[in-house]
Amino acid sequence: MNKTEPRTLSGFMELLPNEQILFNQMKEKIENTYKKFGFLPLDTPVIELSEVLLAKAGGETEKQIYRFNKGETDLSLRFDLTVPLSKYVAKNYGNLSFPFRRYQIGKVYRGERTQKGRFREFYQCDIDVIGDGELDLINDAELPSVIYTIFKELGFDDFTIRINNRKILNGLFESLEQKEKSVEILRIIDKIEKIGKEAVIEELTKIGVSNNSINKIISFIEIKGSSDEKIEQLENLQIENETFIIGVSELKEVIKNIRLFGVPEENFKVDLTIARGLDYYTGTVYETFLNEYRELGSVCSGGRYENLAEYYTNKKLPGVGVSIGLTRLFYKLNELNIIKAEQKSVSEIMIIPMIENLEEPIKLATELRKLGINTEIYLNNKKLKAKFKYADKLKIPYVIVIGEDEINSNTIKLKDMETGEEKILPLNANEVIKGTRPLIK
Amino acid sequence: MNKTEPRTLSGFMELLPNEQILFNQMKEKIENTYKKFGFLPLDTPVIELSEVLLAKAGGETEKQIYRFNKGETDLSLRFDLTVPLSKYVAKNYGNLSFPFRRYQIGKVYRGERTQKGRFREFYQCDIDVIGDGELDLINDAELPSVIYTIFKELGFDDFTIRINNRKILNGLFESLEQKEKSVEILRIIDKIEKIGKEAVIEELTKIGVSNNSINKIISFIEIKGSSDEKIEQLENLQIENETFIIGVSELKEVIKNIRLFGVPEENFKVDLTIARGLDYYTGTVYETFLNEYRELGSVCSGGRYENLAEYYTNKKLPGVGVSIGLTRLFYKLNELNIIKAEQKSVSEIMIIPMIENLEEPIKLATELRKLGINTEIYLNNKKLKAKFKYADKLKIPYVIVIGEDEINSNTIKLKDMETGEEKILPLNANEVIKGTRPLIK
Repeated sequence: MNKTEPRTLSGFMELLPNEQILFNQMKEKIENTYKKFGFLPLDTPVIELSEVLLAKAGGETEKQIYRFNKGETDLSLRFDLTVPLSKYVAKNYGNLSFPFRRYQIGKVYRGERTQKGRFREFYQCDIDVIGDGELDLINDAELPSVIYTIFKELGFDDFTIRINNRKILNGLFESLEQKEKSVEILRIIDKIEKIGKEAVIEELTKIGVSNNSINKIISFIEIKGSSDEKIEQLENLQIENETFIIGVSELKEVIKNIRLFGVPEENFKVDLTIARGLDYYTGTVYETFLNEYRELGSVCSGGRYENLAEYYTNKKLPGVGVSIGLTRLFYKLNELNIIKAEQKSVSEIMIIPMIENLEEPIKLATELRKLGINTEIYLNNKKLKAKFKYADKLKIPYVIVIGEDEINSNTIKLKDMETGEEKILPLNANEVIKGTRPLIK
Repeated sequence: MNKTEPRTLSGFMELLPNEQILFNQMKEKIENTYKKFGFLPLDTPVIELSEVLLAKAGGETEKQIYRFNKGETDLSLRFDLTVPLSKYVAKNYGNLSFPFRRYQIGKVYRGERTQKGRFREFYQCDIDVIGDGELDLINDAELPSVIYTIFKELGFDDFTIRINNRKILNGLFESLEQKEKSVEILRIIDKIEKIGKEAVIEELTKIGVSNNSINKIISFIEIKGSSDEKIEQLENLQIENETFIIGVSELKEVIKNIRLFGVPEENFKVDLTIARGLDYYTGTVYETFLNEYRELGSVCSGGRYENLAEYYTNKKLPGVGVSIGLTRLFYKLNELNIIKAEQKSVSEIMIIPMIENLEEPIKLATELRKLGINTEIYLNNKKLKAKFKYADKLKIPYVIVIGEDEINSNTIKLKDMETGEEKILPLNANEVIKGTRPLIK
């Protein structure tokens, strides 16, 4: 028979079991934290009507969409979890309680040019809080505490949630009479970390911003100091623009409350250069950086928006949300050896029966599972050495051997695969667990 | 602005939060059981190269595929989790330990004609055990114990795992010299539950099976009695066909071992009419029925196959596996009111702060979360009544009120939302949990 080469598409992550175990552990930590804060689960379809999914989209996004016809129907794969959320909230408005706090963890699709570390199918892990008509600013301060909890859970200490408010930037541009160029200016200053100050000045000149305005913009984004010092300097700028003034006051309030939510001083700061996208966010914006690995870019981003679902409904639905791009985060952490996929099995104990009658080994396995221990039985007829090799290759922490001698004396032989230590224990699940306790959570 | 109607495609399940909570609980129970038995996680892409995904497929399946081009590339959405597994094992053969025990829970896509209770996007929850060259028959007896554990976990008692062996049917047809018609005959007798005996006889006559052979086939599938009695009758048939003899002996061995694996007598039985698909399975086959809801059809099916990945590799990879179609199962159970989506929130406690300074409410929430309690804080500035209404609508079991009085006396007011009972407790997470213990797991 002709064989087809078993390929996986480039840009699509497919992990080996040990990597998958680690990936799933990270995903679970994120999900459990979202649940701890009372966010409700959601799971929308991967495929939507193009008309619905692309009600708003345009430009870059549209080019990347996986779009196709099935019969007469024009379909698209979701490219984020925000548009499906908008549709969902508009569609189910009458059945939801507001503020609607939801999380969704799922795969999204973008047909980007493939390159190392870029994925066309990737997990987003989103939370959003949606208000009905209004949503208090205090919610903008709670989300950083969720981000903080997650990255601590994932084992990081040195990370910073960078916070800004889009109204400050918008107000500044208004005051400089550059409002109509604000989208372009934002796009340029967003790149300052990447391309540097000189290149930013050059690009701003190119689009016709006056030297005077450029100076003001640069001195603005160069405001230095602690979060409180930055806010003080903003207040001292005496910019008589209402949007600007509201933005500064919102940022001040959010920073004050983030402290209240228990995020330590070293894990957040005001960063006036963060703009996040071009037309979506309208207030608070967040980016999160692992400080020792700045090359990863922001690992968790989001912000406040005025109106979630304006393309579907007249209801005003303001919200605030953040998203973790888990696939890329995992890929990068793994590549940089920051995380290590050492666990190769989910089994904590493997039972090797060396007798014909499997009754006792199966009974023991069932009891162990009931007590919460993942247990597999080696069921194939191989030599003892081959069975141990399997356990060794999968790094299963403990192996239990049950042979004639053990059955006759109502015992089992427990081997700690890491230390090589062997123990004879009573044939009883509780006794076995006592014998392994230190390693098994 | 023109509004787009926020529609979801028909045939695509999108649940309300309370339904989603229940769906996820079922999914978690399945996943946890798979892990308890030591199955490794896998998560393959939803999109594959059509050439790879359709290396084998044809007929009905191919028509239902979501297939499209992106640029020059011919892509398809997976229609099951078995073909991706075949590809994966062939591709990663050198990096896997055999027997390779894996689970995968994920969405698959089939563009079937939409009708009530039929889904185009649905979850499959699969486990398979793959051997390298060979795989002992004992594995066929372990899987029913996994199925048994899952349906018990899901709260069912009255279900039956029906077991057959394809070699018995194949051998029978060989002995009747109807081998070349076996696929057609199987398809017809597979329908006996649906269309009845007379219609089966009629269809068999139509395809040219002799009366004599029809009689033998019918008397065969009408063999009655307990599992052991059926096997005895099969042995007594004296059919001198090797395939048949092997099939009966395999079935006998599997039934013996299922008992050993602790599946109670009332939860499994030999059913000689079960064929499962037409050319894939080669030995043991399973179907699982909820006896009070036979109209659901089989809720967990699978079987033994000779060669998982013959389209991709020369390696012989026999395996055995089962699959639960969770989306349809959930839909039907929900429709029949067998399961009730009563939980409307993941939060176990909601804290209502009635003070300006949120420091103490936030501290308490953080402590409660650390102790494992999902806790949300009502953050928006509403009247107390509106806040309670929110907790009530979401059926959050406990509400804590912290106002001036409470802060001054270092206490909280805990309200049991089901009984209406109120308690004053110390402002301390451990004390609060003690006060709620009976309801919160």
